[in-house]
Amino acid sequence: MNAPKPAPELQCTQWFNSAEPVTLASLRGKVVVIEAFQMLCPGCVAHGLPQVQKLRRVFPEEHVAVLGLHTVFEHHAAMTPVSLQAFLHEYKIGFPVGVDTPADDGPIPRTMAAYGMRGTPSLLLIDRAGQLRQHHFGQIEDLALGAQVALLMGEAGPEAPAASAGGQNCVVDGGCAP
Amino acid sequence: MNAPKPAPELQCTQWFNSAEPVTLASLRGKVVVIEAFQMLCPGCVAHGLPQVQKLRRVFPEEHVAVLGLHTVFEHHAAMTPVSLQAFLHEYKIGFPVGVDTPADDGPIPRTMAAYGMRGTPSLLLIDRAGQLRQHHFGQIEDLALGAQVALLMGEAGPEAPAASAGGQNCVVDGGCAP
Amino acid sequence: MNAPKPAPELQCTQWFNSAEPVTLASLRGKVVVIEAFQMLCPGCVAHGLPQVQKLRRVFPEEHVAVLGLHTVFEHHAAMTPVSLQAFLHEYKIGFPVGVDTPADDGPIPRTMAAYGMRGTPSLLLIDRAGQLRQHHFGQIEDLALGAQVALLMGEAGPEAPAASAGGQNCVVDGGCAP
Amino acid sequence: MNAPKPAPELQCTQWFNSAEPVTLASLRGKVVVIEAFQMLCPGCVAHGLPQVQKLRRVFPEEHVAVLGLHTVFEHHAAMTPVSLQAFLHEYKIGFPVGVDTPADDGPIPRTMAAYGMRGTPSLLLIDRAGQLRQHHFGQIEDLALGAQVALLMGEAGPEAPAASAGGQNCVVDGGCAP
Repeated sequence: MNAPKPAPELQCTQWFNSAEPVTLASLRGKVVVIEAFQMLCPGCVAHGLPQVQKLRRVFPEEHVAVLGLHTVFEHHAAMTPVSLQAFLHEYKIGFPVGVDTPADDGPIPRTMAAYGMRGTPSLLLIDRAGQLRQHHFGQIEDLALGAQVALLMGEAGPEAPAASAGGQNCVVDGGCAP
Repeated sequence: MNAPKPAPELQCTQWFNSAEPVTLASLRGKVVVIEAFQMLCPGCVAHGLPQVQKLRRVFPEEHVAVLGLHTVFEHHAAMTPVSLQAFLHEYKIGFPVGVDTPADDGPIPRTMAAYGMRGTPSLLLIDRAGQLRQHHFGQIEDLALGAQVALLMGEAGPEAPAASAGGQNCVVDGGCAP
Repeated sequence: MNAPKPAPELQCTQWFNSAEPVTLASLRGKVVVIEAFQMLCPGCVAHGLPQVQKLRRVFPEEHVAVLGLHTVFEHHAAMTPVSLQAFLHEYKIGFPVGVDTPADDGPIPRTMAAYGMRGTPSLLLIDRAGQLRQHHFGQIEDLALGAQVALLMGEAGPEAPAASAGGQNCVVDGGCAP
Repeated sequence: MNAPKPAPELQCTQWFNSAEPVTLASLRGKVVVIEAFQMLCPGCVAHGLPQVQKLRRVFPEEHVAVLGLHTVFEHHAAMTPVSLQAFLHEYKIGFPVGVDTPADDGPIPRTMAAYGMRGTPSLLLIDRAGQLRQHHFGQIEDLALGAQVALLMGEAGPEAPAASAGGQNCVVDGGCAP
């Protein structure tokens, strides 16, 4: 990444799992993780969305916000908000999900265009100061993503970070004890 | 974890993948990740060792050391250094692995006893100052482990940390592009 | 299963991946595998559909027909034929898929009701004589499913079965050779 | 496969999980599945052995025998019977496992040589009449293996086969019901 730049504000027509529209401005002070997806994109369903669901469990909400962004750029008639709502219900996705605003003049919705995303899934990491720090297209390993989020969480910001990230420790099948 | 304490020094009879014995003292200034395992422990083979192999790829060697520790506490005749050497070769484990010193008076080897490990796999995280900061028994999620290593990497130490942890970004099967 | 009974005919409003409507009557002489699914059912997407895609690859088309049946019983507005068409495209599902006919008086579509299905995914196995022989709800192991299809394939029928089912044999990662 | 030939008799120095030596001759009338493996072969541990453990659960013992064969052709000092015994215990392998007899004049043990195996894992299928019918090196899909075993099970033999192979049917995570 080059020098970080302010992350463009989200342009959504509606939100699920949130009583009010979500803005990046209102999340200043937190690390923001945005999963841009399409509900009929196999890589999003198999990898991207389960990864941020895990991330939601592992990192504390007071320091890390997780958002979904439904960036429909194909099969528009098949991925309407009505279908998305059922999808979020069936896949038990509980974090806020915004519907990216369709463009007047092409298939790429506005927030997707503003960030120059190459497709779905795309994952954005925004620091506590509102700057875009990572922009991934495709799959990223959990170990690397956990590290990137933690490094941003550890940076000086309006609030001091917690000393340690969650880390559930459960005995694995096949573990051995004396 | 309570207040961190100095991590006890390793007590090994021999090392693989290292020309010389490895000591924690010599790694001061780095974060040290130790995977304590037994070569015939299914949870170590399926989860613990692959996880630290990934960790070795994702984090830079100048800031994070990865070590294996063969803590045999059962089936001693079946897990000799000769068998371990073949195991490391077949599983393509390239980081240094020490053989924990057998005790005179029981099945638990010395380093395992000094750390009070409950079994295998156990994962230890030691900070740049040589203090034990995390001690997991069983399985830990990649996202949480990546975060914990990164937070230790970001702490003030003899050397300043790199600004970003690796993070290979490759397109997932099933990803979508306009 | 009790004594086998004739499998009720499919009642579909339209078909994808087939120029003409598919009937069980027209498939007499073949073993028929029917995957009843909903495009927003996570268990169908993660397990049921990939399993019959593999089955399509492994068994010869001249002896085994594979069909999908979109049995929408919830979120009807979210799983229209328009959405299904995009889903089949994105998930690369190439076998014929019929849309089960909605009922006049309730959420359960007609073929689903005729078979007494309990939900999705459901998997039906119909023998060469058109009799229902297996009816699974939920997940079934590949080994068991492969066996059941092969046993039906091996039964006397209008055509004699091939002597052996496919069985691609490829070297596994981590295999060893002298 | 060409015309089937009698399967060469096993040449083992000792057996685990069996009070007496196992011979193919004594299994005439059953389908016999032989998993040839090495305990330090990653592909055997990750794929081959778990597959035949599943196969043991799915197929009835009165018609299908499952055997392991420890065909050590490398790292002989690391994979002794003492190590194998601990391995079988830790990996909960309950079917009979024979130790292939070392050759006088090279690394390839005798049964492995008699069958012309190319490495590990290798999987052999022997019919009710004692003829070798399938010989796989590497990985084979569960669906195809299940079919091959079932087809052999269905062949005329000293005893008539059961009409259906097990097939546990359990509800999948993410299944949907009205």
